[in-house]
Amino acid sequence: MFFSSDNAGPVHPQVIAAITTANTGYAPGYGSDAFTQDARQKVRDTFEAPEAAVEFVINGTSANALLLATMSQPWETIFCADVAHIQEDECNAPEFYSQAKLTLVPTVDGKMSPDALRTKIESEQNRGVHGPQRGPLSITQVTEKGTIYSLDEIRALTDVAREFGMKTHMDGARFANALVALDCTAAEMSWKAGIDTVSFGGTKNGALGVEACVIFDPDLAWEFELRRKRGGHLLSKHRFLSAQMQGYLADGLWLDLARAANARCTQLATGLRDYDGLTFQCEPQANIIFFDMPRREHKRMLDGGAFYYVMGGDPHTGDPDGMLTGRLVTDWSVTEDAVQQFVDLLHG
Amino acid sequence: MFFSSDNAGPVHPQVIAAITTANTGYAPGYGSDAFTQDARQKVRDTFEAPEAAVEFVINGTSANALLLATMSQPWETIFCADVAHIQEDECNAPEFYSQAKLTLVPTVDGKMSPDALRTKIESEQNRGVHGPQRGPLSITQVTEKGTIYSLDEIRALTDVAREFGMKTHMDGARFANALVALDCTAAEMSWKAGIDTVSFGGTKNGALGVEACVIFDPDLAWEFELRRKRGGHLLSKHRFLSAQMQGYLADGLWLDLARAANARCTQLATGLRDYDGLTFQCEPQANIIFFDMPRREHKRMLDGGAFYYVMGGDPHTGDPDGMLTGRLVTDWSVTEDAVQQFVDLLHG
Amino acid sequence: MFFSSDNAGPVHPQVIAAITTANTGYAPGYGSDAFTQDARQKVRDTFEAPEAAVEFVINGTSANALLLATMSQPWETIFCADVAHIQEDECNAPEFYSQAKLTLVPTVDGKMSPDALRTKIESEQNRGVHGPQRGPLSITQVTEKGTIYSLDEIRALTDVAREFGMKTHMDGARFANALVALDCTAAEMSWKAGIDTVSFGGTKNGALGVEACVIFDPDLAWEFELRRKRGGHLLSKHRFLSAQMQGYLADGLWLDLARAANARCTQLATGLRDYDGLTFQCEPQANIIFFDMPRREHKRMLDGGAFYYVMGGDPHTGDPDGMLTGRLVTDWSVTEDAVQQFVDLLHG
Amino acid sequence: MFFSSDNAGPVHPQVIAAITTANTGYAPGYGSDAFTQDARQKVRDTFEAPEAAVEFVINGTSANALLLATMSQPWETIFCADVAHIQEDECNAPEFYSQAKLTLVPTVDGKMSPDALRTKIESEQNRGVHGPQRGPLSITQVTEKGTIYSLDEIRALTDVAREFGMKTHMDGARFANALVALDCTAAEMSWKAGIDTVSFGGTKNGALGVEACVIFDPDLAWEFELRRKRGGHLLSKHRFLSAQMQGYLADGLWLDLARAANARCTQLATGLRDYDGLTFQCEPQANIIFFDMPRREHKRMLDGGAFYYVMGGDPHTGDPDGMLTGRLVTDWSVTEDAVQQFVDLLHG
Repeated sequence: MFFSSDNAGPVHPQVIAAITTANTGYAPGYGSDAFTQDARQKVRDTFEAPEAAVEFVINGTSANALLLATMSQPWETIFCADVAHIQEDECNAPEFYSQAKLTLVPTVDGKMSPDALRTKIESEQNRGVHGPQRGPLSITQVTEKGTIYSLDEIRALTDVAREFGMKTHMDGARFANALVALDCTAAEMSWKAGIDTVSFGGTKNGALGVEACVIFDPDLAWEFELRRKRGGHLLSKHRFLSAQMQGYLADGLWLDLARAANARCTQLATGLRDYDGLTFQCEPQANIIFFDMPRREHKRMLDGGAFYYVMGGDPHTGDPDGMLTGRLVTDWSVTEDAVQQFVDLLHG
Repeated sequence: MFFSSDNAGPVHPQVIAAITTANTGYAPGYGSDAFTQDARQKVRDTFEAPEAAVEFVINGTSANALLLATMSQPWETIFCADVAHIQEDECNAPEFYSQAKLTLVPTVDGKMSPDALRTKIESEQNRGVHGPQRGPLSITQVTEKGTIYSLDEIRALTDVAREFGMKTHMDGARFANALVALDCTAAEMSWKAGIDTVSFGGTKNGALGVEACVIFDPDLAWEFELRRKRGGHLLSKHRFLSAQMQGYLADGLWLDLARAANARCTQLATGLRDYDGLTFQCEPQANIIFFDMPRREHKRMLDGGAFYYVMGGDPHTGDPDGMLTGRLVTDWSVTEDAVQQFVDLLHG
Repeated sequence: MFFSSDNAGPVHPQVIAAITTANTGYAPGYGSDAFTQDARQKVRDTFEAPEAAVEFVINGTSANALLLATMSQPWETIFCADVAHIQEDECNAPEFYSQAKLTLVPTVDGKMSPDALRTKIESEQNRGVHGPQRGPLSITQVTEKGTIYSLDEIRALTDVAREFGMKTHMDGARFANALVALDCTAAEMSWKAGIDTVSFGGTKNGALGVEACVIFDPDLAWEFELRRKRGGHLLSKHRFLSAQMQGYLADGLWLDLARAANARCTQLATGLRDYDGLTFQCEPQANIIFFDMPRREHKRMLDGGAFYYVMGGDPHTGDPDGMLTGRLVTDWSVTEDAVQQFVDLLHG
Repeated sequence: MFFSSDNAGPVHPQVIAAITTANTGYAPGYGSDAFTQDARQKVRDTFEAPEAAVEFVINGTSANALLLATMSQPWETIFCADVAHIQEDECNAPEFYSQAKLTLVPTVDGKMSPDALRTKIESEQNRGVHGPQRGPLSITQVTEKGTIYSLDEIRALTDVAREFGMKTHMDGARFANALVALDCTAAEMSWKAGIDTVSFGGTKNGALGVEACVIFDPDLAWEFELRRKRGGHLLSKHRFLSAQMQGYLADGLWLDLARAANARCTQLATGLRDYDGLTFQCEPQANIIFFDMPRREHKRMLDGGAFYYVMGGDPHTGDPDGMLTGRLVTDWSVTEDAVQQFVDLLHG
């Protein structure tokens, strides 16, 4: 019953196999190898973006920080959700790389509305040289609350950004989970909806540690490469990063894994929905569930062998009736049995 | 005949096996797993440093930059060799992370002398608030020229540093190659010789991509961890970084691989030494050879299928008698036959 | 009728005279002169803080940025009001100098409550290495909305900060205006209320361009000095910065000027208070008034020769009945006549 | 007998008068005032550069750091003399603002040769993404050793820079002293010789604290302004910065002051030249003399009431015959008598 995070699960064998395949003899370092060339092309094909620059890094924090730094200036502010991963969970990495600051847009169920975005942008207006200047917008898909922007919603946000001359970055740590939920193409969910750059995640969905930075304007590529090297994020044995992406994309594995993770989440939500005293914070749409439940119930679940995060307090001390928030994440490897076991334990 | 770099070679099967072994079920992310705990202890044991903080990163640039940043302040200057990797090959990463600057100490055969170091340190003296303040010293072992500091030479440098209140970092990207050449212990080549932190390399010696940051003063550990996270260098599926180090250190593999690499270099040096028109820039001591040879000869070797770097000009155009510098690096996987083939081709 | 800002007014003749007095013959540069020594002592005396480190800079932005940088680490977040000058009007200078980020605490009438502060601090809790760490608190006195924290309110905020191990900085660009309004001592409004550092403003209150950075813990002095030099904020002809502070503090001039400014503001508020259609955003307590009034009325005042800022729209276009916010600031040199003229024009 | 620095001398009365003149009534802050507009135009006229952007700051360090930051990228290296002020005396300010690093070009008598510059630039070649990229060149006129580049020498250096696609900055802290020595125009010594930006000094030549940043390509102006604000270097009561420049340039005052300073230096050099045991490090060309003399003689001069810097050791202890370097700087206010007194004391 492991639901703590989709980075706690194992690497899919097909990704390991790709690493092993790449481990034959010599290959030039730093991304000049044939594996990298092929992986880049596979990502371009996936996004139907033959001109896009594609570079690989080891994780989502570096992907986000490097892309946002490449899109902004030190005297600008980056607009993002008040619950954004770049705000809450990257220990100032975006600020470190970009030297810019973050302006937080209020959200409902993890999602910004075009109006909320516009209001925030306009509130920064008219200070001339004194205030921070407008930098890019960053949106997260799947959001940090497990919800998903529809294609129209993405377009509405990028339209607002564009109106103010701003570019848009997508933190796609769970890009695949959103894609299969929306049943659309990668192009539709990115550049066709006005997105300029994507952190295209692999790590949370079966890879060992790889994200593709997809930059639809190839003029930014060289700056990105210099920033990556300067950040210490260019791997010497680069083929093993690229090989993961090869394995991840081959035969639609990435979509299969996301479908599996989402399906287990649906199964889980169904099992929890009718449980008295448990409420969802918002309707789960991908592979994450946030739910409120009395401390006593959390304690019972954890003591019963379930693994997941409980927020806002310690389930083992304090008022047993006090409500705490739990987070459940299903990764590709979670089994139907594990989900059932969790549901059964809850219903006790 | 691949002699371009020790990061162009393959990963040793024992390291791949360790990754595969770690890929079983769930493990907590970000380094809280059992693999990491074990790998840390193995490094501590290797260095006979039970109190040391040990953290893993993906490559040497991030290890160097993060350690130096943890040891310095933005208004300081870091002393290093004029040929240091941190000066020449990291695209300002040390400056990015530390915000400090670098002061270059002149070298002979890639090595600083205590006198050259002292002269440089003193030249920065007496400017009060106006000049950069003295930060740490960084030395590279094996040096960028393929030479090795003796234990006494290391001690002499750290003594000078200590006299001025400065700490010392060792860039040990090829730590193992130096260790087997000196036939000493990791403790002797580090803290017993006055070293405060080590970038303990694995990548160039058979790992996929892992370096251990060894910090003998554990009080610096928390700052290092925060800097690593902020730099985007904390892996979520951290076990796969640690597993590499487990595989690398198990059964003395790391020493065997370094011995193999050094032995092939010795074989190569022997084969080249008597060739007319070829001169070594300095006596090879580990697994790197820098040599000068006429452009025409380089061209002949490259055309004959040898892979290595030629510096200072293009071997295929220009005065055929003009001298160019070649760099040969033997990694653990180079065979005796490959070396012999190279020597035969040269003498051809 | 000049009410645009207290930095648009003239320098008081006593400050000019102090500059002229200092302009005799040679004096060592960079603050080693006798004028600086004397000015530092005068500030220490003013604050009854014989051990405090006191350093001068040219303006409030550099004072705030340098003090906050000295008090924080790059992986921390600085807590401040959502309307703080450091957030809105310094073009990322605090972030540039500190490399930290800002966390915004909601305010009422420009003031944080202890509860709001505590809630914000606690919301950053428990993320370990992933989230930004807690850095210092910064409060502004007089606030950006023209209100004033009582001594008890200051103490309540610094108590919350101290509870979480955080230090507190006071942005005292209008320190004098608050002091005379509260009728307390500089010590009572700073270290006796738990404040650790103060940007002690002179520029807005009759100086040419000088602020004292007051650091009650002298152990931070040397770092501050290095940061100031590195920021390009150490003046070579430093005596002319110090002389301003000498003139500013001599014979209680700074208090007289603040009293004058506040008195004109009271006069102005009295004159505006009963005007139909004009509402104060909050009760003026120092030398600033924020008020809402229909666009048509703003237009009439500006066309009539009044100078002040109108926010949120252009008074000359748009719905004449639409409400816009005006800001009136009275500096030391505003005359009773000018205020009366403004009031008369309004009541027209 | 004050020869310690040209920033230890007084402000010229004409500059003080200009400040006083500007101190009448209200003026908009942050440089939107009429004094600033006029001062900017006067600088443009001085440089015969009607399109140039001109901005004022308080000192040379901020001028250099802001201009170099505007001209470079964080992954670049700035080429400068090994004795450059930006390398030795600004406590990492150029690196702080630009995030770039510095590459030191060897000098003779404080001056780079085109060959030395070319060699250094080429030594950074061909590392691709791994090494720092080429940023701007910075040259100092008058050099830190008191020598002066001829117009041809400046052109030769900027030609080399241009050949590699690099821009050139001039640190003109003593621009006026060089100009009168070369008897040329400001245009000839700057943009006509290939210079792209100038730190045009006032402080060392009779101003209180003002330098003009002259940017011949006005497209860089907005970025410069944002960087200045973000650095805390935009003055609110900006008119007093501009007024200084007005006073400094009016009626050729700046040239008169520089001529006076240089003349006193010539007088001093003549008086010292024939003294046995004293040798000039290089031929003085502006208002600075570096000379070597036995410790015992330095001691005698300092004890006799002369003020100047002695470098490399303490004149009051150690071998009396040991040679130490002295530095003499003549500012505009030094009298013939003071010089004669110094010469007489020496010849004693």
